[in-house]
Amino acid sequence: MSLLAIGTLAYDTIETASATREEQLGGSATYFSLAAALFGPVALVGVVGDDFRKKDTELLGSRGVDLSGLEVAKGKTFRWAGRYEADWNTRHTISTSLNVFEHFDPKVPHASRSARFLFLANAAPEIQAKALAQVVSPVFVMADTMNLWIDIAKPALLDLLRKVDAVILNDEEARMLTGEKNLLRAATKTLTLGPRFVVLKKGEHGAFLIGKGAHFALPAYPVEEVVDPTGAGDSFAGGFMGHVAAEGNAEPATLRRSMVHGTAAASFCVEGFGVERLARCTKAEIDARCGELRAIVTV
Amino acid sequence: MSLLAIGTLAYDTIETASATREEQLGGSATYFSLAAALFGPVALVGVVGDDFRKKDTELLGSRGVDLSGLEVAKGKTFRWAGRYEADWNTRHTISTSLNVFEHFDPKVPHASRSARFLFLANAAPEIQAKALAQVVSPVFVMADTMNLWIDIAKPALLDLLRKVDAVILNDEEARMLTGEKNLLRAATKTLTLGPRFVVLKKGEHGAFLIGKGAHFALPAYPVEEVVDPTGAGDSFAGGFMGHVAAEGNAEPATLRRSMVHGTAAASFCVEGFGVERLARCTKAEIDARCGELRAIVTV
Repeated sequence: MSLLAIGTLAYDTIETASATREEQLGGSATYFSLAAALFGPVALVGVVGDDFRKKDTELLGSRGVDLSGLEVAKGKTFRWAGRYEADWNTRHTISTSLNVFEHFDPKVPHASRSARFLFLANAAPEIQAKALAQVVSPVFVMADTMNLWIDIAKPALLDLLRKVDAVILNDEEARMLTGEKNLLRAATKTLTLGPRFVVLKKGEHGAFLIGKGAHFALPAYPVEEVVDPTGAGDSFAGGFMGHVAAEGNAEPATLRRSMVHGTAAASFCVEGFGVERLARCTKAEIDARCGELRAIVTV
Repeated sequence: MSLLAIGTLAYDTIETASATREEQLGGSATYFSLAAALFGPVALVGVVGDDFRKKDTELLGSRGVDLSGLEVAKGKTFRWAGRYEADWNTRHTISTSLNVFEHFDPKVPHASRSARFLFLANAAPEIQAKALAQVVSPVFVMADTMNLWIDIAKPALLDLLRKVDAVILNDEEARMLTGEKNLLRAATKTLTLGPRFVVLKKGEHGAFLIGKGAHFALPAYPVEEVVDPTGAGDSFAGGFMGHVAAEGNAEPATLRRSMVHGTAAASFCVEGFGVERLARCTKAEIDARCGELRAIVTV
């Protein structure tokens, strides 16, 4: 049941149609671990600068995230700034400053090297591979990526994909990775690249899972008011992997149920700015929303 | 279990990224009744010009569509021409010629006035209301509409919505009708306009149903190759209403299952140009695809 995540911690400046928030806690590993921690222990490997706020470390710790793998480096924490169009469908990246993450060399603490479940959040595939190599014999490894790495580091990404059990992609990434416009074909083609399972995220339109013995589609939880979609994908991954780790196996039936938990986690994430809603979400709330989702999709 | 549909029969010229087909059989009532006929008897009320091809009348008849309410008027059949972008998400209407449909005055044959289930396919709301008024005491009436009528005939449309049990809208229409960007809110607001149920179609992203005792979401059937999306929405409505009529009731549980049947019918429709795939679809194929869909969505 040990779950480990490697990824970014960041300060985000986010502009939506109705508000702007500066320097708020974000990053793939942050969202992931806050969501995963709702299901059980999760350890995080990442790097922050010496400007990382004590209250943010405390927040993660208070939610049960094991920070023994969090490196504090001299310099500034990763910064990202983005703007959403009013319909949420378009996100413009205004700026990205890798800062201390640029030279991040992941060091998995000894205690975490036996982690059975591993999530390689979005990062350069070389960094993901370095982290993966340090974990002894994980049961289930899921990797995320982004269009940037498909564009500039495809060989390294393809190499990584041969070593993981699952990959989680959004629609644009799947199309870009495979050259297939049709999402089902893109997902099917991704399976030929190595992973046994592909989780395809379609934002407000839900997600589907495809792989050996598994073909499962789920609509998104119908959120009445999206406040900020930042982190939804990582929260989905956190709920998904958190539930997989809690179940202790990655059988197709477990993965299906984990899709529901990921969907519920993502739905809470988007109801607040940054991590604010996710960080006060309870397991009971997740369970209730999973129940609602099951009711909505039951034929 | 009698089902009646009022709507258009047309000749469509359709351009996709890979092919163009001219003057092919189309129209809302055509797609609807071909899909509904897979589930049981369906009668059609509509008008065609004296150019309507005998083979098209024969096709509809051979699939079990009762054409006793099909009027043949002097003049040309309704024409529509459109073009799809390569991603299918954008459809451009190149031309619309109402022709004989412009002065269509629906006359429901005596035998169909006792129809228990009624579908008012997309047409001017005044025409839909005229047809509705001729049906004595239907159990369940569903209406479709389009952006044009929301734009130019909103009072008549609102008047119609107060008299129907359900309305079927796509995402754009729901937003336009209610002024709500969020689809769930748009659907919920539509319920306040009169219908007890709203079916919201999201194309490749599936559909959802909302109403008293019913909140159900379903992804689209994952079609590997879309050939022509024309008629998908009407085929969905045909599968939906065909199954409702076959079950003989419009209880929420029936409506949920009918969503699955509508989805299956639409998935066959888009696999061929115009009606070509739908018109040779069998009930066994529909049932098999419904089974696949249930497997895909079962948690």
